[in-house]
Amino acid sequence: MDSTHADRSLEGRQGIDRRTFVHGAVAGAALVAADGVTSLFAATPREAIAAQIAAQHDATVKMLRDWIALPSIAAENLNFPAGPEYMARLAREAGFQKVEIIPTAGKAGVFATLDAGAATTLGIYFMYDVKQFDPAEWSSPPLEGRIVDKPGVGKVMVGRGATNTKGPQVALLAALHAFRAAGHTLPINLVLVCEGEEEIGSPNFREIVFKPEVEAALRKCVGVIIPLGNQDLDGGVQINLGAKGIVELELVSSGETWGRGPARDVHSSYAAQIDSPAWRLVQALATLKKADGFTPAVDGFFDLVKPLSPELKQILADAIPKRNEAAAKKAFGVKHWIADEPWAESLTRLVSQPTINIEGLVGGYTGPGGKTILPHRAVAKIDMRLVPDMTAKGTLALLKAHLAKRGFGDIEVNMTGGYDPTQTPADSRLVKAMAAAYRTNGIEPLLWPRLAGSWPGVTFTGAPLNLPAGQFGLGHGNGAHAPDEFWIVEAANPKVSGMDGAARSFVDLFYALA
Amino acid sequence: MDSTHADRSLEGRQGIDRRTFVHGAVAGAALVAADGVTSLFAATPREAIAAQIAAQHDATVKMLRDWIALPSIAAENLNFPAGPEYMARLAREAGFQKVEIIPTAGKAGVFATLDAGAATTLGIYFMYDVKQFDPAEWSSPPLEGRIVDKPGVGKVMVGRGATNTKGPQVALLAALHAFRAAGHTLPINLVLVCEGEEEIGSPNFREIVFKPEVEAALRKCVGVIIPLGNQDLDGGVQINLGAKGIVELELVSSGETWGRGPARDVHSSYAAQIDSPAWRLVQALATLKKADGFTPAVDGFFDLVKPLSPELKQILADAIPKRNEAAAKKAFGVKHWIADEPWAESLTRLVSQPTINIEGLVGGYTGPGGKTILPHRAVAKIDMRLVPDMTAKGTLALLKAHLAKRGFGDIEVNMTGGYDPTQTPADSRLVKAMAAAYRTNGIEPLLWPRLAGSWPGVTFTGAPLNLPAGQFGLGHGNGAHAPDEFWIVEAANPKVSGMDGAARSFVDLFYALA
Repeated sequence: MDSTHADRSLEGRQGIDRRTFVHGAVAGAALVAADGVTSLFAATPREAIAAQIAAQHDATVKMLRDWIALPSIAAENLNFPAGPEYMARLAREAGFQKVEIIPTAGKAGVFATLDAGAATTLGIYFMYDVKQFDPAEWSSPPLEGRIVDKPGVGKVMVGRGATNTKGPQVALLAALHAFRAAGHTLPINLVLVCEGEEEIGSPNFREIVFKPEVEAALRKCVGVIIPLGNQDLDGGVQINLGAKGIVELELVSSGETWGRGPARDVHSSYAAQIDSPAWRLVQALATLKKADGFTPAVDGFFDLVKPLSPELKQILADAIPKRNEAAAKKAFGVKHWIADEPWAESLTRLVSQPTINIEGLVGGYTGPGGKTILPHRAVAKIDMRLVPDMTAKGTLALLKAHLAKRGFGDIEVNMTGGYDPTQTPADSRLVKAMAAAYRTNGIEPLLWPRLAGSWPGVTFTGAPLNLPAGQFGLGHGNGAHAPDEFWIVEAANPKVSGMDGAARSFVDLFYALA
Repeated sequence: MDSTHADRSLEGRQGIDRRTFVHGAVAGAALVAADGVTSLFAATPREAIAAQIAAQHDATVKMLRDWIALPSIAAENLNFPAGPEYMARLAREAGFQKVEIIPTAGKAGVFATLDAGAATTLGIYFMYDVKQFDPAEWSSPPLEGRIVDKPGVGKVMVGRGATNTKGPQVALLAALHAFRAAGHTLPINLVLVCEGEEEIGSPNFREIVFKPEVEAALRKCVGVIIPLGNQDLDGGVQINLGAKGIVELELVSSGETWGRGPARDVHSSYAAQIDSPAWRLVQALATLKKADGFTPAVDGFFDLVKPLSPELKQILADAIPKRNEAAAKKAFGVKHWIADEPWAESLTRLVSQPTINIEGLVGGYTGPGGKTILPHRAVAKIDMRLVPDMTAKGTLALLKAHLAKRGFGDIEVNMTGGYDPTQTPADSRLVKAMAAAYRTNGIEPLLWPRLAGSWPGVTFTGAPLNLPAGQFGLGHGNGAHAPDEFWIVEAANPKVSGMDGAARSFVDLFYALA
């Protein structure tokens, strides 16, 4: 998903000790057969399943390592259809009775159902794709899933997708394996929807969700979760009541579409005679921000921005004192927040304000030193983060109109993906069950009004489904979209869950919902 | 050199047939021994040497191919000290009696002298370095120097450095080999100065030229030539009376020097809270151009721009009718010149106006698709072309002051190389000899006031040497700084010289000077 752990509290909160029955007892048993033998040690179904999770620890770690070895990257057209086929196999092996690959105009998704004959049904969102990576930037090979001892963090698996989002997803699958192996029936039914284009902005996800049989299955759900390692390194957990929307796009200035400048790169001495698409891109970009350098200046950009509701304001006010400014500054290497705002104002801006960001600039000669060319083309990679009631479609239209009005109508605005913001009520049954599951683990969760990152939850929270939806899960990882991405297998801090604790958190959620 | 053939006339001018004694007669003799045998066929020394050039054709082609196989690229620190050592060997083999490698703070140069006991001494400028290349973009391997049949052009050698500038330089060396092999003494003495950093803006060239023994040798020269294939594909030749100066630099915006924004790339959701060095770069760049998109807006940029003298204006007016607008537009894929100016005005701008060009933009994520990061750093690669009386040092200072005045003092301005403009009088002995040599070949040269490209001629034309200096040579190549760079070995058009004709043009220049 396109969010990040650092967006959560960096400050520790009080948590009780981890379960005491963990894998010491049965570790080494590797794959305990599905004969219920582990339940002999356990007083309750929850304890029996937890023991089974511990017993199958090595198999769970292997499941994650094997999955990391198969990176599906939509932007690079890498590992399709191997990715969705593998995902379908993982679902079948975890006990989903019905598993279907859903073709789309882009990469295929996966739809699966697990009918436990229960009264309650939970939707689960998975993504099988991962972000691009450059092995040269990694200290451990990004596809090998090596276990590394990370000082102060614990034994972690390093690999692309480890935390975003194969680690948490494997934890959920491990919980399902454990139910079955321990001889217990799930207390709820599950509906799984999975896509392979999350990292390019989920351009075809609605095709999957609104396929009639998928939509019908989702309509029965109490809500939808996206598995995530939500703990910070002090053990604290945040429940995000929403997330910003996003539009990802490329702004392309070229001699070809402009009708001026060269059709190919020419010698830079002709800058005296031939117009420059690169300068044009700079001038167009400059109109998108006010002089302060951060406020979007696109006409009408703020028209639909809804202030935080009194309820969300209160939730934010309650949460701010629990967040650690110094730790955040250190994590980012930041000395000043935008406009030199104090911490509370800066967090309010983070939660409530839309943005226009340059992800990358690329045009002409980009190698070492210089090269005397006048490039015929230059590109800015942009993302815009949206808050309610902005829409991806509407904001894209505003950007195009803004450019056209200023004579930059030839600059191509190529949207590569995006979706609207998502918001879920704090008093929904799903959010209450999440909080209860965390409390079962001795953690009082921090309610947070809105993630500044994005995930396509609006597909569920928006019309016509109007379902609660949000991230859930214990455990921790970091480095999403970066080198040395990792997921904790065994945490150094006993308040932080490793892979098995993450799996158990899903068991607790299922029982809390049921 | 940092100029281009397309900067010359694209229109054909009348030329007479090539020499009729060329290689048909003695081709196949390969390396005729230096016993004067070829002079038996020849009525004059010039004809004897021409016959020898034809006889050694294959060896000359091999000399170029071998040299192309050793690309010295200062920006990539490739092939040093192999490059200068090879250059020194080439000079020794061509008959320079004294050859010295001159160390500098950067890459070493080569200084060589050939004392023929003559009254007149000519300086020769060589560069042994070449521009970067990406073999994936070439249709023929850039270091193999393959002979390719190029329709309408002739048999050409394809390779990095073929036309810029190893081909023309080999032609000159071939002339020297031919003098010796034909048993004739050079009618002039030669002083060779060669550098290996031309393609990065000649940052250390003055160290070579103003080493006392080199300066003393140059002071005896009537002028300095840079060998170049000056013919267009119709056979016409241009004599450039000057060239623009250049400053190459990188503008770097980073969180580190700014003291705002992140110290490393962070997730783009933090664009709401953390300042963006990439946007800052865009805003700084936008101040460098007026709203028209092409006029430099750096404070004081035009203060030292000297209008063309009446003499240069007349030379330009005489030349403009001989240049073909349609051919130029086609060559560049350009539909409109800057400001929709007519051809004559546009050429006047090309010759007389300084520029600020974006060579490249690079920052953050530059691969396929998008990546949701907020980059901590972004770079613009810039070149500025200077006309008299602008100076590289002064213009750099103007740029820095301009940025500082607007609050962008943290943007690093890293100059990588550059030099002042160069200008040579039309009535100098060197220019007259060039014209005479071309006329000996039946070509009336086109006088051109100033090349829009650059070469470090000011080192010779400026104080303290104050020598005439300019490009000279028949022959043709294209694709400098681009894929599939080539140099004509045998031209399809009889009015265009191949490798041997290019060599002969130097013979004619030597005699014209003597």
